[in-house]
Amino acid sequence: MELLKKRIVSEGRVLPNNIVKIDGFLNHLVDVAFLKSLAEEFRRIFPDPAITKILTAEASGIPLATVCAELFGVPLLFAKKAKSDNIEGGLYKSETWSYTYGKKVTFIAAREWLSPRDTVLIIDDFLARGSALSALCDIVRQSGARLAGIGIAVEKGFQGGGDKLRADGMPLVSLAIIDRLSDGKISFRE
Amino acid sequence: MELLKKRIVSEGRVLPNNIVKIDGFLNHLVDVAFLKSLAEEFRRIFPDPAITKILTAEASGIPLATVCAELFGVPLLFAKKAKSDNIEGGLYKSETWSYTYGKKVTFIAAREWLSPRDTVLIIDDFLARGSALSALCDIVRQSGARLAGIGIAVEKGFQGGGDKLRADGMPLVSLAIIDRLSDGKISFRE
Repeated sequence: MELLKKRIVSEGRVLPNNIVKIDGFLNHLVDVAFLKSLAEEFRRIFPDPAITKILTAEASGIPLATVCAELFGVPLLFAKKAKSDNIEGGLYKSETWSYTYGKKVTFIAAREWLSPRDTVLIIDDFLARGSALSALCDIVRQSGARLAGIGIAVEKGFQGGGDKLRADGMPLVSLAIIDRLSDGKISFRE
Repeated sequence: MELLKKRIVSEGRVLPNNIVKIDGFLNHLVDVAFLKSLAEEFRRIFPDPAITKILTAEASGIPLATVCAELFGVPLLFAKKAKSDNIEGGLYKSETWSYTYGKKVTFIAAREWLSPRDTVLIIDDFLARGSALSALCDIVRQSGARLAGIGIAVEKGFQGGGDKLRADGMPLVSLAIIDRLSDGKISFRE
């Protein structure tokens, strides 16, 4: 999506350790009107009328997923990070390694809000190694719901998470795939 | 707001330890269309045309704050929970006690996204003892921005956080204030 790539180039900052900071419109300060244009693109890519839920993981995927849920006219479900001492029953759980936090994170979602009657579109703002996304896919699998697709705003292609999921047959589409960061320059996959 | 009170009564569940679970439309599964009606109510309550930013705290306040930002036509800024080993410079920081997590939580926001030129409306889904909200107010104070108001969906009045902030002169409005939970029955403040 050209509009998104342009905005990444003009506002994104390349930091050490392959970090691209896009926190001026996507995941700290959030330009909600701009997210709406991303949601419209997802609507074109995933026109499946059977979609019943948008699923994301807390926290930074929530603004984009909220705007998508509004546009698709379905509820949003966000998987929560478990508080270690407070996991109740009636939950789907999926454990993953968070590279951001440098520790294991367990994502949870209440069983009553996801079932085999659901068709799910997963939405997230960022995809790098894909650990949070794998947890979301695992939760969909546990629930018996059908996965209609996975829509990502920005994928760091060089970290391999997206290509691995595509090789596994996941219906994954990213609006911008960054393939290289060198000397502060951002190169996108064609 | 009658519509919200009705929905709390029909779908909320009272659990032990004064917990009201409203996770079927507000903060786990999220009815975004319904949140829009809450946002419209906040627009009536806080018509200040000078508002430049909606501020909330991750994670569960983000859906409502996103919908508000869209309606007010301004960006959303969400304060993040600090990852202990990863606090950079250039940040507003406010430490608070999280009763949910049973530990100290530090909220952070980048200095570049909040300044004395801003007029801020704080939005959150829930207010109990008010610790996260105090951290948000503290961040606004540090930034020199003007606080236009604080809009809360559901306040647990009996936990005192809201009344304390009102006594401090904070421009706080909650759309539904729960004053009592007894025998599974929810009583609202008139």
